[in-house]
Amino acid sequence: MSQAEGNGGAGARFLAEVREQPAALRRLLEHDAEIARIASAIGERDLRLIRMVGHGSSDNAASYGIYAFGLLPRRTAMRDSITLSVHYGTPVDMSGSAVIGLSQSGRTPDVVEYVKGARAAGAFTVAITNDPSSELAGEAETTIPLAAEPEQAVAATKTYLNTLAALALLAGHLAGRGAELADGIRRTSELIEGAIPGLERSTAKLALPFSYTGRMFVIGRGVEFSTAREIALKLLETCRVAAEPLTATDLAHGPVAALDPLFPVWAIASNDGTLDTVQEAATRTREMGATLVASGTAAERIKGAAYTVPVPSPDPALLSPLVSVVPGQLFAGALARARGLDPDAPHGLAKVTLVN
Amino acid sequence: MSQAEGNGGAGARFLAEVREQPAALRRLLEHDAEIARIASAIGERDLRLIRMVGHGSSDNAASYGIYAFGLLPRRTAMRDSITLSVHYGTPVDMSGSAVIGLSQSGRTPDVVEYVKGARAAGAFTVAITNDPSSELAGEAETTIPLAAEPEQAVAATKTYLNTLAALALLAGHLAGRGAELADGIRRTSELIEGAIPGLERSTAKLALPFSYTGRMFVIGRGVEFSTAREIALKLLETCRVAAEPLTATDLAHGPVAALDPLFPVWAIASNDGTLDTVQEAATRTREMGATLVASGTAAERIKGAAYTVPVPSPDPALLSPLVSVVPGQLFAGALARARGLDPDAPHGLAKVTLVN
Repeated sequence: MSQAEGNGGAGARFLAEVREQPAALRRLLEHDAEIARIASAIGERDLRLIRMVGHGSSDNAASYGIYAFGLLPRRTAMRDSITLSVHYGTPVDMSGSAVIGLSQSGRTPDVVEYVKGARAAGAFTVAITNDPSSELAGEAETTIPLAAEPEQAVAATKTYLNTLAALALLAGHLAGRGAELADGIRRTSELIEGAIPGLERSTAKLALPFSYTGRMFVIGRGVEFSTAREIALKLLETCRVAAEPLTATDLAHGPVAALDPLFPVWAIASNDGTLDTVQEAATRTREMGATLVASGTAAERIKGAAYTVPVPSPDPALLSPLVSVVPGQLFAGALARARGLDPDAPHGLAKVTLVN
Repeated sequence: MSQAEGNGGAGARFLAEVREQPAALRRLLEHDAEIARIASAIGERDLRLIRMVGHGSSDNAASYGIYAFGLLPRRTAMRDSITLSVHYGTPVDMSGSAVIGLSQSGRTPDVVEYVKGARAAGAFTVAITNDPSSELAGEAETTIPLAAEPEQAVAATKTYLNTLAALALLAGHLAGRGAELADGIRRTSELIEGAIPGLERSTAKLALPFSYTGRMFVIGRGVEFSTAREIALKLLETCRVAAEPLTATDLAHGPVAALDPLFPVWAIASNDGTLDTVQEAATRTREMGATLVASGTAAERIKGAAYTVPVPSPDPALLSPLVSVVPGQLFAGALARARGLDPDAPHGLAKVTLVN
């Protein structure tokens, strides 16, 4: 049953790409000097607002960017509305804004169009993409290559992790802490490498009791909200589970009422100022009789979890989401196989999404 | 079976409050002059960035605020991170920002704390709350009272609609179009009043075939993304359906793979620049064999829907979400009753959420 045995079968590419993530992170670090130059350009122009746009995993990474830019250079970053400028044609005041277009393929049509319009309106535009020859890279003033090498499974893994790392590195350089972040990413890549074999075993065991699960919530807060969004997306696309990401606090504002013993919750806990909110959400989850999986760097501090999937803590802690998403990726791969699905090629999806 | 018969039984309060919405909107308009003064204060200080914070329905309304401020006074509005300042204690540059704290009860702890901190950091702070004597109103520099009168059902309805209208009116005044928006809201209240009896009948019929539905997506884009979020939340909290809101475009970026004939989609279509994205999402939905419900002002323009629940078009079109959420509210109420649940008092929820 172990996914580790899956060489060439369903999910082989997906699993291979999860395992490649540490090496992919180190390849990104080869572009550190380019990223430092882009940070300098943003710093020199004193751009105070960072507007990020993307869909799917790229948009999930943007949720992380809000914290990377907020915590390191203390700049306000937002997931901007694509619709406002692209579909409604509304002029947006781009003075003082840096724009980051996020697309693994570099071909997401409305992201390309948004970046083109933002550049024409005077924004400093950066593409973060795995294809530096893509349309998106062509429209942006400058590009950070993800350097993840081709990703063949439809569900993104290594491009997601490298997008997080690229945002952290850019934010680090903007804060004058680029070297610290680059070192942190290198050490984090080693942490992930060391953790993967154990996580493959624990998530393979975890998949079996969840074989018939149709609904899940994935909760996190702060830096780990991106992780909650990304794990939920992996479960949706590879396992056909109706998995919804929620902040630990929003769970209590209505959705908690839907929980029952067949509606489990995956909670991501960190040793930071959000821990009490995740603990409180865990308590509410148990009160509703729902099965709780506790993960993240502070998994052990969640009481009453049916299953605990801890991950090691990177330094700086801002890099935790690079690690805490990995058990979710591996769980999704194992659960897909347990349900007879192929995580490499989910039904109804293509690798490049050209929907506008 | 008709919800219209429900006087005093399960869901009687919820239904009564849905029906009260037109009157509640007109009560808000009595505060037009106060809202105009707050808009003047924002305009005089030339505050370019609007930071909105809230949870649950209030946060859903903030998704609407992004378009109200973007389309009318062409200012950038965002749903700001509460975690960054409140839980991580990060100083945020609030110069040039107006802050809008959204809470029906005015007691949501981290929203109160965010507003307190933002005011201390120099932001111009506005509370939008149904309780002008609440802590939130006390911490903010100025308050827009929702004037919805007490809301007793746990699931918000009239406070949600009045929050949308308050944001539209504030944005309208900021754009020098306050009178037009006030007139529009008054006419919209009449449109809703006229539509409710028919919508009660059509949604009551619709509830029966969905009695055993465990999972749904609710899709919309642009101004109607707030509607998708709010309808999904009503279904989660009153019907215990795992309902997830998605933009029409994000559906294609992964989640579409989860659809099947037992996983229906509620699509909200508007006659605006996003219509083709919703049409495309509807096509993908049908290709996956999923049942499609088409609603919104452009419901008739969605092909192949199993059920169509059109709503009348308000003027200006920016007010469409005030109308298009109503069939979702009524459907949630009817479906809850069909499932033997009480929408007035969902299991595990209290009216005021004091979770931090």
